[in-house]
Amino acid sequence: MTQNDLFAKSAVASWKLHLGRADQTFAGFTDAELQQEIAPGKNRIFYLLGHLTAVHDRMLPLLGFGTRLHPELDEAFITNADRAAPDRVSAGELRQAWSTVNAALTSAIEALPSEDWLTKHDAVSTDDFAKEPLRNRLSVLLSRTAHVHYHLGQVRLAVKKDS
Amino acid sequence: MTQNDLFAKSAVASWKLHLGRADQTFAGFTDAELQQEIAPGKNRIFYLLGHLTAVHDRMLPLLGFGTRLHPELDEAFITNADRAAPDRVSAGELRQAWSTVNAALTSAIEALPSEDWLTKHDAVSTDDFAKEPLRNRLSVLLSRTAHVHYHLGQVRLAVKKDS
Repeated sequence: MTQNDLFAKSAVASWKLHLGRADQTFAGFTDAELQQEIAPGKNRIFYLLGHLTAVHDRMLPLLGFGTRLHPELDEAFITNADRAAPDRVSAGELRQAWSTVNAALTSAIEALPSEDWLTKHDAVSTDDFAKEPLRNRLSVLLSRTAHVHYHLGQVRLAVKKDS
Repeated sequence: MTQNDLFAKSAVASWKLHLGRADQTFAGFTDAELQQEIAPGKNRIFYLLGHLTAVHDRMLPLLGFGTRLHPELDEAFITNADRAAPDRVSAGELRQAWSTVNAALTSAIEALPSEDWLTKHDAVSTDDFAKEPLRNRLSVLLSRTAHVHYHLGQVRLAVKKDS
C-alpha cells in the first residue's frame, strides 16, 4: 500500500466503523421503539434515522458519486423539525432507505482512488478550492463520520443500560 | 503542500473543528449548569467534561507525545460511572484540566510530521502493527474526533433551543 492508500483507508475504515455502530443500534429498536424520544421533548429516534439517511443521501452528489436516491426525505428530516407534520414514511420504508443509501454510498467510498480524496467536493467552486485545498472530499467524509456519531450518542440514551 | 500534508492537515482540521465545538459548548454553561443531567437519570454534563478530559489526556502517551497531565481523573471519569462517589474536583479545576490537556495535545498534534500519522500508536505491538497497518496514530485521532462529537451530541440536549 502507498502512503496515500494508508491515509485513505484509515479514513474509510473510520467511516465504516462508526456507521456500523449506528446501523447496529438502529437495528436493535423495534418499529414501535423508533417512536421513542431520545430525551423528553427531544427528537424521536425515528426522526434521527430519517435525518441521517437524508444527510448520507446528500453525500452521493456532494462526493461526486451520482444522483440522490431519496431526495424526498429532505422536507421531513432536514428542512423541518421532528413532528412538524404527520409522518409520510413508515419505519419499514425508512429502514430500507437507510440500508440502500448507506450501501450505495459506502460502496462508492471504498472504490474511490486514494488520491481522489484530496480533490474538491461538489459544494466548493474551483476558485475557492484553489485557495482552500482542505475543502476536499476527505473533509466531507471526516465531518459526516463525526456527524453520525453525534446523533448516535443521542440515540443511545434511549437504549436500556447504556449511555 | 505534499499529498501527505493534505491528508494529515484535513484530519487535524477535523479534530480542531469538532473539539472547538465541544469547547464552546462547555464554556456556555455556568458551573451550576454543569451539574445538570443531559437527560433524566443520565450522566451530568460535569461527568462528560471530566470523561472527555481524561480520554484526551490518555491520548498523550497513546500518540507518543509524552506522559499524562491528569491521570488522577481516570477513577472518577473513566473507571466509575457518574455519581459513584462524591466529586473530588471542582468545576473550575475541571475546566482548567480540560484546557491544559487539549492545548498540550493539539499543539503536539499540529507539530507531528504528516507521515508520522501512519506509524503505530502506543497500544499496538510492532508485530500486530505489521499485520494491521491501519492501527496507526491517524486512526486514534479519527476515533477520538468521533468520540468527542458523540458526547457533544448528548451535552447539547441540555442547551436551550437546541438539539
